[in-house]
Amino acid sequence: MASESSYLVSDIGCLMTCSPQDGNSLGLVKNGAMVIKASQVEWSGAAADLPQEFLNLEKKSAEGRMVTPGLIDCHAHPIFAGHRANEFEMRSNGETYLDIQKAGGGIMATLGPTRDASIETHVALTLSRVQEAARWGTTTLEAKTGYDLTVKGELKCLNVAQAVQGKTPITLSPTLLGAHLIPPEFSDDREAYVKLVCEDMIPQAAKQKLCDAVDVYCDQNAFSLAETKLIFEAARRHNLPFKAHVGQFADLGGPELLASMEGLSADHLEHISEEGIQAMAAAGVVAVLLPGACVQLGMVPPPVTKFRNAGVSMAVGSDLNPGSSHSSNLPLAMWLAVTHYKMTVEEAWLGVTTHAAKALGKTSKGKLHPGFDADFVFWDAESPSDIPYSFGKNCAHSVFTQGRVLN
Amino acid sequence: MASESSYLVSDIGCLMTCSPQDGNSLGLVKNGAMVIKASQVEWSGAAADLPQEFLNLEKKSAEGRMVTPGLIDCHAHPIFAGHRANEFEMRSNGETYLDIQKAGGGIMATLGPTRDASIETHVALTLSRVQEAARWGTTTLEAKTGYDLTVKGELKCLNVAQAVQGKTPITLSPTLLGAHLIPPEFSDDREAYVKLVCEDMIPQAAKQKLCDAVDVYCDQNAFSLAETKLIFEAARRHNLPFKAHVGQFADLGGPELLASMEGLSADHLEHISEEGIQAMAAAGVVAVLLPGACVQLGMVPPPVTKFRNAGVSMAVGSDLNPGSSHSSNLPLAMWLAVTHYKMTVEEAWLGVTTHAAKALGKTSKGKLHPGFDADFVFWDAESPSDIPYSFGKNCAHSVFTQGRVLN
Repeated sequence: MASESSYLVSDIGCLMTCSPQDGNSLGLVKNGAMVIKASQVEWSGAAADLPQEFLNLEKKSAEGRMVTPGLIDCHAHPIFAGHRANEFEMRSNGETYLDIQKAGGGIMATLGPTRDASIETHVALTLSRVQEAARWGTTTLEAKTGYDLTVKGELKCLNVAQAVQGKTPITLSPTLLGAHLIPPEFSDDREAYVKLVCEDMIPQAAKQKLCDAVDVYCDQNAFSLAETKLIFEAARRHNLPFKAHVGQFADLGGPELLASMEGLSADHLEHISEEGIQAMAAAGVVAVLLPGACVQLGMVPPPVTKFRNAGVSMAVGSDLNPGSSHSSNLPLAMWLAVTHYKMTVEEAWLGVTTHAAKALGKTSKGKLHPGFDADFVFWDAESPSDIPYSFGKNCAHSVFTQGRVLN
Repeated sequence: MASESSYLVSDIGCLMTCSPQDGNSLGLVKNGAMVIKASQVEWSGAAADLPQEFLNLEKKSAEGRMVTPGLIDCHAHPIFAGHRANEFEMRSNGETYLDIQKAGGGIMATLGPTRDASIETHVALTLSRVQEAARWGTTTLEAKTGYDLTVKGELKCLNVAQAVQGKTPITLSPTLLGAHLIPPEFSDDREAYVKLVCEDMIPQAAKQKLCDAVDVYCDQNAFSLAETKLIFEAARRHNLPFKAHVGQFADLGGPELLASMEGLSADHLEHISEEGIQAMAAAGVVAVLLPGACVQLGMVPPPVTKFRNAGVSMAVGSDLNPGSSHSSNLPLAMWLAVTHYKMTVEEAWLGVTTHAAKALGKTSKGKLHPGFDADFVFWDAESPSDIPYSFGKNCAHSVFTQGRVLN
């Protein structure tokens, strides 16, 4: 049964399968074991229950550590050039978002450097960001475009994601975010830009199979609900799943739209109506919460209690980007989710594993269950709460993707 | 002039001396250079101004990096055994501080393991915490006792600090916090415990020269203002500087007392009166702010704007401890100080350098100025704002104490 490429992960102090069993939703098993075959989980459970056929496999000991699924960052913008530490400083000196925009800041400040950078530069920058995320336990990372906003440039950024994928065993999930902002060239003709996204950008990205999904920034000063709907319809015509940034600054009704059209996720959600919450719950749209940006911008947290009570699945993302959240550190996002958003430790963990996988439409990730990808982390920790509790310390001991340890 | 132990730090992209010159309070110098002689700074400034006598010194290139004083953590409790991740989880499940105390949690939960642990265990635990802090750029760390609360045990913990000091080039600043809480043995006789602290613990610690300062937890459910005053007077009799945890939960008038008795610092300060602020400013008492614990406990931030306007020096500490802030990561505390407390980037940097040195009474630290200790950090950064901006990423490239690089 067990091929030569199989091995046994032994001496797991605490195994988190995220496969509800033993009556706990994180699937926690004390004194666990796991069998890896090729790049997948073949078996997981209590060491005492290990089937005899696996007893003679080569062993990789976790030496008593906690083992969990690799972390999944379902909201990240790692493809950009330039940085915006100056804006961070301007905000700290009391300047407003509007002041910063007037001084040439905001997303527009990243547009120039991103357009100017070569593919090689972008690949090097993006790869270094992916590697930094992996150091902290991330094995799957979304990679949004959205800082070029030309057809050619957005496709270039998707090609960057593809090139980076060729250089790292971390799974990238590329998302076309051509509708991040109306670019300056179209400031007098929004309609033409939306048309470009729908009739040019999305079809080409779909045809070349360059992305997993389409994203829209549906908020005040970005795309309207009607524009968002047009873009979702274009994505659907090309069999691409879609999602949106909604309610970061104002609730335009994005959650209800996503629910009615069966979108993957609604992200940010500092502002959302009761109807939006109920619609998301009914349609199974994931709420992707981004506490790093929320704290950094001094926003009021999203209504976590209402999401919980309504049964909305909550994911937690880093929102890695050059403006509001220059961090890919998911364990830190978990700490913020628990302390600032009042999520439970269990919710924070599901938010970076199972629910994040659901938000990305990655059905083979986020659990350590037979048939799932063998992406996992050995942690210097005894229990799930140890990770957010020890915030700011890297407790990831070893990170594995598809059964192999990262260098 | 330059001895054999001297060398030149060259190619500094941005040098932060924290010695106000060139019209900026962080003492920022572009294209800087620094001369180290033995364990001190001999010269610092613009490379173009380097005196000829230093031109032939051995060079250590910063390769364009930013160089700042080593970070100083002026509020940390690194001497304890056991951990309290379970309480973190209980809080995340909505249980209150009181629920947790009833379940045997809080400081009392650390008392047992700390009393039980051997000196060797304590030295290993504390050393590992100091090393983790140093990884992120900390070169001076306060080391409070306060989790044993017997005379013998508090002295044992001070001896642990001394033993750890023998094993690391990071500077520890041991603080006697015998007045952290009334221990269970004295719950019916507070007066006797205060007397023990004043007449036994402080005199012995002073006689054996085991600590730099005395600290008191002056707050509701801890020590009253009158008790705090008795302890300060005992410290003063033994020529020990003193400080206090004040206003974390309630304002008992601690800031005014510290000001009237010339204490080093008032720490936490979520609650403080206008009179307290003015008194601190007039007396030069440092406000030590602890955003990690504040965020974790969901408290309202201290009145930073009022401190700024009154001219109170603000320091930023990690509050590393097993309960409310299990982190020694000062760059992360800086990010929280800027984003959650609305401090400026400059204030956050002064808070972990010059003002932190003042809070510890360490007059030879916190600046890269001739005669100061050669504790400094090479950062993968271009400007001071890069560090909090890139929160959750370790940008410390090399850490030097007394002129020597850490392994």
